Amino acid sequence: MKLGKVVGTVVATRKDEKLIGSKLMITQPLNMDLKPIGEPLIAVDTVGAGIGEVIIYATGAASRNAARKHDAPIDAAIIGIVDNITLDE
Amino acid sequence: MKLGKVVGTVVATRKDEKLIGSKLMITQPLNMDLKPIGEPLIAVDTVGAGIGEVIIYATGAASRNAARKHDAPIDAAIIGIVDNITLDE
Amino acid sequence: MKLGKVVGTVVATRKDEKLIGSKLMITQPLNMDLKPIGEPLIAVDTVGAGIGEVIIYATGAASRNAARKHDAPIDAAIIGIVDNITLDE
Amino acid sequence: MKLGKVVGTVVATRKDEKLIGSKLMITQPLNMDLKPIGEPLIAVDTVGAGIGEVIIYATGAASRNAARKHDAPIDAAIIGIVDNITLDE
Amino acid sequence: MKLGKVVGTVVATRKDEKLIGSKLMITQPLNMDLKPIGEPLIAVDTVGAGIGEVIIYATGAASRNAARKHDAPIDAAIIGIVDNITLDE
Repeated sequence: MKLGKVVGTVVATRKDEKLIGSKLMITQPLNMDLKPIGEPLIAVDTVGAGIGEVIIYATGAASRNAARKHDAPIDAAIIGIVDNITLDE
Repeated sequence: MKLGKVVGTVVATRKDEKLIGSKLMITQPLNMDLKPIGEPLIAVDTVGAGIGEVIIYATGAASRNAARKHDAPIDAAIIGIVDNITLDE
Repeated sequence: MKLGKVVGTVVATRKDEKLIGSKLMITQPLNMDLKPIGEPLIAVDTVGAGIGEVIIYATGAASRNAARKHDAPIDAAIIGIVDNITLDE
Repeated sequence: MKLGKVVGTVVATRKDEKLIGSKLMITQPLNMDLKPIGEPLIAVDTVGAGIGEVIIYATGAASRNAARKHDAPIDAAIIGIVDNITLDE
Repeated sequence: MKLGKVVGTVVATRKDEKLIGSKLMITQPLNMDLKPIGEPLIAVDTVGAGIGEVIIYATGAASRNAARKHDAPIDAAIIGIVDNITLDE
């Protein structure tokens, strides 16, 4: 899993019908200092994440597990909202 | 999922027969400012996307879910056409 | 599989219920000289790894196999604690 | 899927028996201008591709679908031979 | 699949019990000129590969197919030992 921040939303009217009801969140990957790393991706929200929140996202089959939609065209999902990060390097 | 733009098509007469009927679209990955990032890939169209449209694509098993062809040699598919992107960074 | 070091933990109260009971460890990828490479990821601990330990982690379905949770939103897991590395280059 | 060119072959006498009968082709990834990008990989041929041909390859489960060998240790396969690329950027 | 060279071994006493009996080999990815590219990974040996040998490895489900352990926490495996590479660029 990776750390990210919800920075926006995408609207697509013409889409796979198995995506109906799924919120498509623009998710900026973060490092552990909460700095952006790399380009944003589009993840399905499964935990009620809001704009600006620091979240955990998963990719691949894990994201379909999160969405409870094993036959959906989903390859990334937000699976948790971060309360706290503890680093002991 | 990722943002992309349909920039072309590929024709392959000799191919896996499970690809017959699937349109192979050259898809340029985009960042959230709609600027090209990285190299194009070949994705199967599942939503009637046309040249020049900004789309969402998925990879891996998600793309076979989109194509409704679980045993096809597909690893990327266009799954939605983008109407609107809202960024609140 | 890859080599890593446990450098912290993440707490998320609002999360997929299938993650309840799973410890989310911040894992820094290492090269074979035990130097950090790339950005940390979040892996579920399945072997009782502690902060500072050098570990082996796996990604994808392998991580759900390690967690014995095939339908969980897990895409990375710690699967072993390293005793010894022998390099003969 | 990605574009590539067949640039060689690999022979391995000691190998997983499920690979017996599969041709292992060295495949150079190409961009849409047919210029090499990144390092070659080894893909199983499933369409009768020859040295020098521009092909489409797939990775992951898609490649086992192409090879009709779901339990084989295959993670990349050539799935089509390119006749024509049309770019409308 | 990718080309690699076995450059060492990893010992882990505390590990997922499904890894017991699997040899964990440090594998350096190679390009087709047998030069190292990128960082080594840890792959399970399934063909009796020895230190210094040039091998083919696979990742993901392909590696569990090679190990005949579909529920093991394995995401990379050595699947063949290279006799010969022929390049016709």
